[in-house]
Amino acid sequence: MSAVTDSLDWDHVEPAAARRLIRGAIDAFAERGFQATTTRDIASRAGMSPAALYVHYPSKERLLFEISLYGHNAALEVLRSADQGGTPADRLRGLVAAFTAWHARHHTIAHVVQYELNALSPEHLAEVATIRRAISTEIEQVLADGVQDGSFAVPDLPGTTLAVLSLSIDVARWYTPHRGDPDALGKLYADLAHRMVQT
Amino acid sequence: MSAVTDSLDWDHVEPAAARRLIRGAIDAFAERGFQATTTRDIASRAGMSPAALYVHYPSKERLLFEISLYGHNAALEVLRSADQGGTPADRLRGLVAAFTAWHARHHTIAHVVQYELNALSPEHLAEVATIRRAISTEIEQVLADGVQDGSFAVPDLPGTTLAVLSLSIDVARWYTPHRGDPDALGKLYADLAHRMVQT
Repeated sequence: MSAVTDSLDWDHVEPAAARRLIRGAIDAFAERGFQATTTRDIASRAGMSPAALYVHYPSKERLLFEISLYGHNAALEVLRSADQGGTPADRLRGLVAAFTAWHARHHTIAHVVQYELNALSPEHLAEVATIRRAISTEIEQVLADGVQDGSFAVPDLPGTTLAVLSLSIDVARWYTPHRGDPDALGKLYADLAHRMVQT
Repeated sequence: MSAVTDSLDWDHVEPAAARRLIRGAIDAFAERGFQATTTRDIASRAGMSPAALYVHYPSKERLLFEISLYGHNAALEVLRSADQGGTPADRLRGLVAAFTAWHARHHTIAHVVQYELNALSPEHLAEVATIRRAISTEIEQVLADGVQDGSFAVPDLPGTTLAVLSLSIDVARWYTPHRGDPDALGKLYADLAHRMVQT
């Protein structure tokens, strides 16, 4: 497993009780959705009382924000690590393969991160939106580089950027481990995304 | 508007009170999710008492099933109407354009239909899954026809079918009217999907 995969074990969250609450919240949000989850439910999954939860997090929204912030940063880091240079085609394939495999491998947290954005406070959503723009820029820049050197034809750069991201992100909706190996899926999607733009 | 768009006005649901409940349920499920929505909330959006809701629907799940069944059938009908014959490329472009525009135009109901599948009873989910397989078959058959006549290269037919569907379905996650015209988006996605598979 990569460093980023490991770090999704939430080992950086201290103390262990706070880490158990994060994990309980991810499971509860994924299972029932943010709105239907109670702090009692999260605390109980962490083997704690509701009162003990508030020692670590002031609200259910704060837990969602921590999860969303870390999930988005991990996805951005995966993209940045995957950009190993080379031709725009090599770079695009690397980015899409890694981003897709990440959404398959971490489909539970990716699901929470993608589908509960509206439950964040406006300030927290703004902070997450900055990371989302950075993720989008990683793809858009590679597409623009390919247009510039003539290897890609992209009549609608923002629309195609969104489509490439969308293909990977939607994996979090339908992926379950019996759907196959995350890396094989990443390779297929790298091919499809490259075909979308090559001249 | 097409006949299918009109029919998503739920005019076939009688009496008018049942139709108001369907609309209230769509709004509530889209806003708060199925789990966090109460029958009281749905009834109140329809200007009715919770007891009056049960005259028309035995449960919240039954409302979701009616919405899911009709939403899936409408999406399948859109695909079937869009298949106007011609080359596999023409047919694929027509299917993807229509399916994408439908998910933009009906993003609220598409959102409920796609993201609340797990809230259906096993029997109801099985019924909806049959329609989902029919939707998938529409795309897969056109891709297979293109492979057969040599106009498409599709090394992984089920994986590519899922990717093409996924691109359109994910529109329901991010689309809002300020993102532009549904038909223009449909045209862009028809181009991208065609590029994914053309030889």
